[in-house]
Amino acid sequence: MAMEIPLPARGRGEESTDASVQKFGYRLIAEDGAARTGEIATPRGIVRTPAFMPVGTAATVKALYPEQVKAAGADVVLANTYHLMLRPGAERIARLGGLHAFMRWDGPILTDSGGFQVMSLGKLRKVSEDGVRFQSHLDGATHMLTPERAIEIQCLLGADIQMQLDECLELPAQHGEAERAMELSLRWAERSRAAFAKLAAPGQALFAIVQGATDAELRRRSAEALVAMDFPGYAIGGLAVGEGQEAMLRTLAGVVPRLPAAKPRYLMGVGTPEDLIESVRRGIDMFDCVLPTRNGRHGLAFTWAGRVNLRNACHAEDLAPLDRMSACPAARDYSRAYLHHLVKSGEYLGSMLLSWANTAFYQELMAAMRAAIAEGRFAAWAEETKQRLAQSQD
Amino acid sequence: MAMEIPLPARGRGEESTDASVQKFGYRLIAEDGAARTGEIATPRGIVRTPAFMPVGTAATVKALYPEQVKAAGADVVLANTYHLMLRPGAERIARLGGLHAFMRWDGPILTDSGGFQVMSLGKLRKVSEDGVRFQSHLDGATHMLTPERAIEIQCLLGADIQMQLDECLELPAQHGEAERAMELSLRWAERSRAAFAKLAAPGQALFAIVQGATDAELRRRSAEALVAMDFPGYAIGGLAVGEGQEAMLRTLAGVVPRLPAAKPRYLMGVGTPEDLIESVRRGIDMFDCVLPTRNGRHGLAFTWAGRVNLRNACHAEDLAPLDRMSACPAARDYSRAYLHHLVKSGEYLGSMLLSWANTAFYQELMAAMRAAIAEGRFAAWAEETKQRLAQSQD
Repeated sequence: MAMEIPLPARGRGEESTDASVQKFGYRLIAEDGAARTGEIATPRGIVRTPAFMPVGTAATVKALYPEQVKAAGADVVLANTYHLMLRPGAERIARLGGLHAFMRWDGPILTDSGGFQVMSLGKLRKVSEDGVRFQSHLDGATHMLTPERAIEIQCLLGADIQMQLDECLELPAQHGEAERAMELSLRWAERSRAAFAKLAAPGQALFAIVQGATDAELRRRSAEALVAMDFPGYAIGGLAVGEGQEAMLRTLAGVVPRLPAAKPRYLMGVGTPEDLIESVRRGIDMFDCVLPTRNGRHGLAFTWAGRVNLRNACHAEDLAPLDRMSACPAARDYSRAYLHHLVKSGEYLGSMLLSWANTAFYQELMAAMRAAIAEGRFAAWAEETKQRLAQSQD
Repeated sequence: MAMEIPLPARGRGEESTDASVQKFGYRLIAEDGAARTGEIATPRGIVRTPAFMPVGTAATVKALYPEQVKAAGADVVLANTYHLMLRPGAERIARLGGLHAFMRWDGPILTDSGGFQVMSLGKLRKVSEDGVRFQSHLDGATHMLTPERAIEIQCLLGADIQMQLDECLELPAQHGEAERAMELSLRWAERSRAAFAKLAAPGQALFAIVQGATDAELRRRSAEALVAMDFPGYAIGGLAVGEGQEAMLRTLAGVVPRLPAAKPRYLMGVGTPEDLIESVRRGIDMFDCVLPTRNGRHGLAFTWAGRVNLRNACHAEDLAPLDRMSACPAARDYSRAYLHHLVKSGEYLGSMLLSWANTAFYQELMAAMRAAIAEGRFAAWAEETKQRLAQSQD
């Protein structure tokens, strides 16, 4: 099967013959309570953790040039299998040399399995033991996503870190429903692993996803079963879907200690700056979220002095920059008055500048967390930072 | 009156005491037939002519950072009085330090008078001897734009090159209508000049606008009357509004020889690369047009091998860059396949890259024309270039 699909050159390991860089691994640098800082090694470079992955849904981090994402400090970006399988198509991207060349991002790329977005965007979806059948939200065409096809797509894209297909439920979920979906996801994890072993290139890694809604017992069973299968990394899925921060953090506190310390831990789809701080405090290493770019497009900025809604009239004649503490030109060089005008006028440049500033802020936040953990002052840093971020400027 | 309005510091000439840079002027460098290359000196820098001015309607060249506009080779940008007077307001921009600081463009800025866009965008507009009354397309508020107010707004913005208010007609126009509008525009030119003398800062310049539809006799009378008033520059207005290239070029051929050789000549709202070449051939020095950025947002690219419609399926798997002859990263570093994907997906980055590439192409085109004129080979260059640009790639 591997021979029949046009894997990108890099996916076959043809570009590099240096075996030392072909290995995926996690190295712990320092711990501070349950919080930890480290490095994930991939054939395409190091990911400093805790890491925030900007979301490049359709092979572009919205309203940013790839050079800006890199310069902001991002080591890795996320791309969405669901979107890319539908447009432009995984086989097409493979024929074009893989996702890295396509989107001009030469660092590591993590792809999700497509499962979450099938549930949220696909139409007429039907989950069976085999996988999930759905209609594209773009043209109504019917597609079948199985654990094997999700891996095949991610290998076609050339993703450095791949995710197993899982079934994501909306919360709150009935206990029986949550248990059924969790157990199905365990069987899909096993099938994903088998497919990955056949198709993946050296140095690529497959992460399992712990499910079980907000039920501690289901989460425990899911984590233990997946750990027994020995994946190179573990994600926690099915959170940040409306359950509230308290339930999310309680679930993390139950799951993280059951995950192996020598593997990276990825909390999917999270979150606000406060969510990131509290999750890092509980031992999470990786995050992704559309908030910085989506909020940027809506005129909302994250700064070291709290959130700023640039639509508010109070900014109309404010010559101050968005954030004097930021190193990002978007936050430092343009007046709030101008940003207000751009947002009110619906100008591209408003979305471009605020997406850029927010992406840079999230990277600065992660860098600050890594430094605080390395220096053993995470708790104090977190208190001070949370107070600062809770200020309202509008 | 000048004391009552908060003119930006630069507008009062407070920043520079060097009289040598406060003077506006045109210097002819070389002629080749009627085509010519030269320099316009302004207090904010030199404009190399023939020049193309990117359009920054709402104080931003759409989907571009100001640094990209500068790096593309633009010496001057245009901003629209109509848009800025309505949002964020001329007095507000003045309080914020003027348009240059507001939009972070430290080179020369040319503003139109607002007249053209009042006609095309304003509602319930009513032209009288005094000026034009209209309702804002944004909120329906009633505004009155007179020749004096148009100058006052442009001084509040701090525009280096300002335009008189004129009445723009849709073509084809009745002869009597065209004559009435042309004569009204002459009286408005006189009033604009008087207002400008009272309000403008040293080194700022006011251009008159030749009107008269496509009627040679009306155009002659308009040009002669305006030249007698001795403006520092002359625009040709009321063209590129649907009359066709042949009528436009015939009108230019009649008007340009009546304009003083020692003053810059500006053809408003033009145009395609072919329009620019043919107008330069007839002695035009300055242009502005939304085509490069608007087409970019619609997936249409200008290249040295002709127009490219990136929506077309033929580009879906084309690894070639947009334009190997371009020095612009947007044209050189991204595959057509990726651009096609971005355009089809409605992604910001598609508009950003194509607006950038088109803006760079227009500047490269002007640079090539300046070089060809300086070297006395404009006619040969124009033939070769027009053939090249007429290729279809789709």
